[in-house]
Amino acid sequence: MAKLDPMSENYVIAPDPGNSRLTRVVRGTDHLGQATEISVVEERPLTIYLNRQEIVTAMTIGDYPEYLALGFLKNQGMLSETDVVTRVDYDEEVETVVVRTEVETSHEEKLQKKTRTSGCAVGTVFGDMMAGLEGVTLPPVEVKTSWLYALSATINRTPSLYLEAGAIHGTVLCHQDRPLVYMEDVGRHNAVDKIAGWMLSEGVEAADKILYTTGRLTSEMVIKTAIMGIPVLVSRSGFTAWGVEIAQEIGLTLIGRMRGQRFVCLAGEERLLRDMDPGAVPMEEKKHRRKSAE
Amino acid sequence: MAKLDPMSENYVIAPDPGNSRLTRVVRGTDHLGQATEISVVEERPLTIYLNRQEIVTAMTIGDYPEYLALGFLKNQGMLSETDVVTRVDYDEEVETVVVRTEVETSHEEKLQKKTRTSGCAVGTVFGDMMAGLEGVTLPPVEVKTSWLYALSATINRTPSLYLEAGAIHGTVLCHQDRPLVYMEDVGRHNAVDKIAGWMLSEGVEAADKILYTTGRLTSEMVIKTAIMGIPVLVSRSGFTAWGVEIAQEIGLTLIGRMRGQRFVCLAGEERLLRDMDPGAVPMEEKKHRRKSAE
Repeated sequence: MAKLDPMSENYVIAPDPGNSRLTRVVRGTDHLGQATEISVVEERPLTIYLNRQEIVTAMTIGDYPEYLALGFLKNQGMLSETDVVTRVDYDEEVETVVVRTEVETSHEEKLQKKTRTSGCAVGTVFGDMMAGLEGVTLPPVEVKTSWLYALSATINRTPSLYLEAGAIHGTVLCHQDRPLVYMEDVGRHNAVDKIAGWMLSEGVEAADKILYTTGRLTSEMVIKTAIMGIPVLVSRSGFTAWGVEIAQEIGLTLIGRMRGQRFVCLAGEERLLRDMDPGAVPMEEKKHRRKSAE
Repeated sequence: MAKLDPMSENYVIAPDPGNSRLTRVVRGTDHLGQATEISVVEERPLTIYLNRQEIVTAMTIGDYPEYLALGFLKNQGMLSETDVVTRVDYDEEVETVVVRTEVETSHEEKLQKKTRTSGCAVGTVFGDMMAGLEGVTLPPVEVKTSWLYALSATINRTPSLYLEAGAIHGTVLCHQDRPLVYMEDVGRHNAVDKIAGWMLSEGVEAADKILYTTGRLTSEMVIKTAIMGIPVLVSRSGFTAWGVEIAQEIGLTLIGRMRGQRFVCLAGEERLLRDMDPGAVPMEEKKHRRKSAE
């Protein structure tokens, strides 16, 4: 039986709860009528351009804007395999990121199509994402439950904005029992998009990775993970029926309600190698239990 | 000092956890490798049309599609005071709602503007919402803390899809100490939009209402509440710095982290009448504590 190694906290990117740009102290009065000061996460608009075209304004905590822009465009199918990104420029003052590609043509075509088929792109974005699943195949890699327990323990003990200020979601890209990149954001999907942007920038392989998230496993979350090519998605939280259905259809290993020794595998059981006795997993300490980012 | 009345559960609309269309049993294997069955909330697409124009595809649990469509269009500023809604048609088979108005012109103009200013409407939608705040004034009504404690106790004890299946958000429209309409949805904003749709349909006054939500108080949540004309927004969860800032600017009473006897008032303290001793508030029973819809 494998053992947990809670000290394997050598992240490539870890949360930076000490970054003063990411939190602000707000003043209020508590239930006793007494003045109180609370450290709260920031939320700011970031407008993403693809070449000369404004694409979206995301509400974000504000770190890693370049990764967020790249990952958003990639996950929405607006950057294809053949698109060569030449520059990514972030302007803090006007809160914009411009992603520039060598050739603009195919993208402009896409946007014209978008405008034709839908007045408001939210629906189209979702349709595009479902279309992006065509031809996606996820590799039959092995996943040890000892890795999942180790990841869960390490991630929960990692200093984070969540532990500092709450009201934020976390997503972590992992390899075996090692968490690599831990992103947080007020927008649930931004954390995932920042990871996608980092992977694209660094040319990171997806087939041997595990994605861990604090958020719910909805259809959109499952689709994003599959589009990123990651075969395993793990969450502390619950799941929707459609999220489970899509995972089963595309052969993604989906694990929900992972807390302490407990978890439920809802799809892709064939990847799981149950190499650790759940009884040997320590209980979560109360202070590390996540309550509600909701 | 006022007393709690936990039995004031005479809702106009309450959750319907027994509705078999809203949940589904999914099968998985637990941490011990044993087969398990879990009741999970549904998530289905609903495409909203305004007259002949497709507007958005929302991911929703699927109840009250007509209210969701009306409320979404209203909250996005696509239905103005002068628009007369003539019909709302829901087609379950093709998962669409069509909202029809007497006059189509001003709306088509708006969509053309939208298409011009932004390739993807997410950003525009947000911009439109901020613009919708111009001229909004919220009335200086009194809010008793005894009402807030009573609401919190009643809502937490109300049978709901959250208690049944988790992974869902709830929002409740309240009058004084009485919860009126309790909506739940997988999409955080859908629950609020369904309430807005109900208010529009029934011609309900907003000035004397309180909006209670299980979700985080982000900028978008604060803006929506103000656009709906509701002067008080209460949440069990945390808040973002910008959500607090906007509430302070527009004079909305914002209360966060409301659990048991505790809460924090972050804006609009002047509306609060502290008529109840927090020490007299019973602790929350463990089974009624919300953990993570995240």
